[in-house]
Formats: sequence, structure tokens, C-alpha cells
Amino acid sequence: MNLTLENLPRTIDVGIDGGEAVVVLVDQRRLPGELVYLRTSSWRTLVDAVKTLAVRGAPAIGVAGAAAVMLAAFEYAAEEDFDQLLADASRAIAAARPTAVNLAWGVDRARETASEARQARETPQETAEALCRLTEALIAEDEAVNRRIGAHGAELLRGLAKSGENARPLNILTHCNAGSLATAFYGTALGVIYAAAQEGLINRVYADETRPVNQGARLTVWELAQAGVPVTLQCDNMAASLMEQSLVDAVVVGADRIAANGDAANKIGTLGLAVLAHFYDVPFYVAAPTSTIDCTMKSGAEIPIEERDGTEVLPDPIPGVAVRNPAFDVTPHRLITAIVTEEGVWEPVC
Amino acid sequence: MNLTLENLPRTIDVGIDGGEAVVVLVDQRRLPGELVYLRTSSWRTLVDAVKTLAVRGAPAIGVAGAAAVMLAAFEYAAEEDFDQLLADASRAIAAARPTAVNLAWGVDRARETASEARQARETPQETAEALCRLTEALIAEDEAVNRRIGAHGAELLRGLAKSGENARPLNILTHCNAGSLATAFYGTALGVIYAAAQEGLINRVYADETRPVNQGARLTVWELAQAGVPVTLQCDNMAASLMEQSLVDAVVVGADRIAANGDAANKIGTLGLAVLAHFYDVPFYVAAPTSTIDCTMKSGAEIPIEERDGTEVLPDPIPGVAVRNPAFDVTPHRLITAIVTEEGVWEPVC
Repeated sequence: MNLTLENLPRTIDVGIDGGEAVVVLVDQRRLPGELVYLRTSSWRTLVDAVKTLAVRGAPAIGVAGAAAVMLAAFEYAAEEDFDQLLADASRAIAAARPTAVNLAWGVDRARETASEARQARETPQETAEALCRLTEALIAEDEAVNRRIGAHGAELLRGLAKSGENARPLNILTHCNAGSLATAFYGTALGVIYAAAQEGLINRVYADETRPVNQGARLTVWELAQAGVPVTLQCDNMAASLMEQSLVDAVVVGADRIAANGDAANKIGTLGLAVLAHFYDVPFYVAAPTSTIDCTMKSGAEIPIEERDGTEVLPDPIPGVAVRNPAFDVTPHRLITAIVTEEGVWEPVC
Repeated sequence: MNLTLENLPRTIDVGIDGGEAVVVLVDQRRLPGELVYLRTSSWRTLVDAVKTLAVRGAPAIGVAGAAAVMLAAFEYAAEEDFDQLLADASRAIAAARPTAVNLAWGVDRARETASEARQARETPQETAEALCRLTEALIAEDEAVNRRIGAHGAELLRGLAKSGENARPLNILTHCNAGSLATAFYGTALGVIYAAAQEGLINRVYADETRPVNQGARLTVWELAQAGVPVTLQCDNMAASLMEQSLVDAVVVGADRIAANGDAANKIGTLGLAVLAHFYDVPFYVAAPTSTIDCTMKSGAEIPIEERDGTEVLPDPIPGVAVRNPAFDVTPHRLITAIVTEEGVWEPVC
């Protein structure tokens, strides 16, 4: 197949336009209907964009976290209590979503840069500009990291595709969107698929629609079609029948936080796929940057799970009907064949 | 809890009104928004209602199959080639949906009644009236059968609820709608729950939304709330996290066709739940009338699986994106704890 990655948009960009800092995002709430960019200079608007999933995906919201601190720095540059205002804004930004560790990681990176600048007696304006350079660097770093994850993952898939008597391109199942749209560019799980597709190792990707927000049906299938990868959409509950028919050679997903013991939090439904993959003897790969690893948490049981509003599941409430809507679940490490990072396969050690 | 089964509508009814045969159905496409009845004297309209899921559920479409043959008999009663027209209509009715064996079973029951009447030299009009009496009998029989399934299933749940040190009411997970709305009245899987709830054995029912047609989100939660049973809706991909948290004491589902070896076809997603239940050591019960058992099929591999239109999954097609939409999957018998019928637990023997 001919990959057409040039058809994929940049998920998030930052810059200074006429002295004003600006963040430009793909508004993912509008896909696949239309590719619309959201442009803002307000950190509060950017936090809302994170909360309402206009921008989502652990690596992308890591960058968005740093970008939001930058916008706050520009907004408060003329204020006397700049440091206090920036600290308060940073706390609010980090709290926008609880599960992905990358958000807090991006905010922490920005806080460090700001501290260093202030300790070096830079002005608030200079500090804000340093944060802009940091965010640009994080964006470039994220893409580079993803391309390395892709290369390491493709190596594993090459092993699968070339093993056994029936060497042939692979059918991959993925869940949610751990694609270019979940990162600055290229993607983690889908980065692995892009790198493998470039080598002719991919036959087809099956994408779960990923209820209730439908990141698979809205984002993953759109992204893969843009990139020229053959893709089939299915409902989340169809994965078992697909594996039963031996149509899945490997599952590849992303992660929002990985505990020290290798348990991985990812979009709700990932755990169920891991159990199915275990039952049907299908390799189950998690692809994520090392920034997703949170060694402050011993096991997945400590990872906070975001419970979102029930109207995402049932827009028109029915009297007497409760709704459960956890946004993530935790897959125990023993159900994961390998965690692929930019440094290669990561083993729980820390 | 106080069960309020009197709040549940009759799913399907037949009668003769001013010399004209009439079938009255709950139009399940309109639930939970509004309880609207569809009234027709045309067998073709009734077949459309079956195809478009205005009436669905294996036992209910069994009754609908017989009712449609009855409508055809009234429609063709004045025609010279009555027998041929009725045979042709019967074939078209039986082919409306391929997976549930009950539809063919209902049509066959009607065909037998018609043959007997014609062999006894009854007129087409008399034959049509005999078919009306048959359909009324099937409706009464279906409810009686479901109440017996409920009693047998409640016995199994009583064993679970009273066993172990922590005897307490149970949390049950169900998928799709195997409720009163899937039958003439009372339901199969939900019939088991109603019978158990009457004994105080039920704490809460978790209902999968059941993509893509959302029978769980539209029908099961509405039905359980009407009946006074505490119910929580979740997306299909949330079942694993629910079991991981030990919040499921048993899974109870229906079936559309059961092969001689005990493999059971049911709504897509059932197989995945069975694998999860196996992994988490949760009992997995199938509740169905013996009319669902098809001994002409040795194993589940022979059961035809209906593939429905992709627009059910993705209403606005995306260029380059294929869609997979099997309406059913087959659960192997080894993953089923017990198949509960009106005669008690059924063991594969035939």
C-alpha cells in the first residue's frame, strides 16, 4: 500500500502571532464530518478543549498541558503576582483530566522551565517566551518519540508476520484512537501500524468504534483512511467474533498511564480486549512513550479512573435508569505481551 | 423491591376486527421515547416490521412468523390459488431474518395448522380463522413457557445468592433484550430476573447498551425500570471492568438458536461476555425456550449469521472505511454454565 501520511493534520501547534501567543488545535469533536481548527490565546479555553475532548489522547494532552501553561504565562505577564497566578493556573490545568499522567507531565515540564527562567531573573514576558519554545520542542520531541515507538513496534510485528508457515501481512485490531490525532503527529499504536505498513507488513486494521465517545468510529477510521491504510470499523462487542474467526493477528493499543508493575490504564474496553486476546492466544501490545510510565504508582489499582457524565452514554436520560461511564480501565501486566516505548520493549522494573 | 410487571405492554397481539384480521405490535423502534403500537392487516408490512426490528427477539418473531402466515391466509382467502399463494408467502416470511430459528418454527407451526385444515376440507376462510386461533395459542404458550423458564432460572440464582458466607442479593449482567419485549410477555433472560426479583434475590441488573441497534439502552433499561427492577446501563466495552470489580454475580442472556451440541447463537457481543465470565469465574446462563433448540445443526458453526447493513454502525459512511456488522455470534457450549429452558436445564443430547 502507499502510505499518505502527508494527508494527516498536525494535531496541535503553537506560535506567537503579533505579540500574542496562539495555540491551534484540530477540533476533534468535529471529525470526521469536517476538519476544523480551534485557535485560542486563552488558557481557560484550552482547558475546556481538553475537558470536552476537542483535544484528547495522552501524548497530545501532555503537549496541550504545557501549551496551556504557556498561554497563562502570556496572559499574566503584566500582572504583579505573575508567579502565583501561573502556579494557580498550572494546578487547574493539571486537574483537567485525572487519568492520563502525560497531562501532569506536560504541566510539570512547563513549571520547571518557568522556575528556571524566573530563578535566572528572566521577566514574565521572557518566561512566557521560554514556555513557547518549550512547547515547540515538546511537539517535535513527541513526533520523534512516536517514530521511534513505531520502529520498535514494527520490529515486533515483523517477527509475527514472518513467523510460521503462512508468512503474510497482518490483521491488526486497535481500540480508541492512539493515532496521530492522539499525539502531536504520527501516533503511538497507529505509529506502530504506520511503520509496519511502510514495510508491507499490514493487511488490514480493524478499529473498534469505542463507545461512548466513538474515537474509533470518528477519528481512527478517518485517520487510517487519510493515511491510506485499509480499515474496517466494527462495534466494540464484535471483537470476540473477529478473534474467533482468526481474523486478528495482534492487538495494538495505546496507554494513558502505566504503573511501575506494568499495569496499563487505557480507554475503557481495553481490558476486555486483553482478556479476549489472552483467551484466543493473540499477542497484545501496548505502545506508549516512557512519559506515560508513572513510577509513583506501584500497581494499576492506584491509578485514578475518570468517571464521565452519564449523558455521554445516554443523551436522553430515562427515569429510573442509572448510567455507569468510567472512561478508562486497567489491564494487568500479565495480559500484555509487550509494552513498546521509544526505548524499545519496557519491562516493569522501576 | 416491588415488581410492577403490570406496567409492561403486551409485545404482540392478534385478533379479528370487523371480519378483518389485525396484528398489533409494540413498535420497538420508537422506544424508549414513546410507547407506540403498530397495527396492520398486511403480511408484507409485518415482514417489514420483522426486518426493521419493530418487533425482534427470537420468541417474539416466532409468534410474528405465525401471525404473518395468518394475515396472508386472510389476504388470499378469496383467491383461487390460495394454497400456492400461502406457501409462497410462508417462504418469504420465514426468510425475513436468518439466524433465529424461532421465526421458521412459528411459520412451520402455522403451515402445519393450515395443512391440517385444508386436508380436513376447510375453506380458506376457515383455515385463516384456525391460524388466528393458533397464533393466540402461541402467544399464551409463549408467556407460560417464559414463566417456567423464569422459575427454573430463579432456582439457579437462588443457589448462587444463598451460597457462600456472604449470602446477599445478586448483581446480574445482561446483554441485548431477552425481556418481555423480546417475547409475547415476561421474557426469557429477564423472565429469570423477574422470577428471582420476586423472591428478593436481585440487587441490581447491569444492562449492556448492545450496539449497534441499542436494544439494551432502548429496550432493556426501559423495560426493567417499568417493571421496578434497579438497573444500570453501561456501554458494551465496560463489562470487563465491571467483572474486574467483582460487581457481576452472574450473566444471564437469551439465545436465537441453539445447536445440538449446545453452542448458542445470540446477539453480537454475547461470545465476548462468555469469555470474560469464564476468565473472571462468573456463571454464564442462557435462558431460552426449547423452540430455540435446532437439532438439525450439529454445532454452532452451522448456524447462519445475519450480516446487517453497515449504516447501522456508521450512519454517515466515510470514504475508504469498510464496516463489519454481524448481528449475532456463537458461544461454544463449554463457556455456558447452563442452558435454562421451560423444561429445566437442557443438556446437549439430541
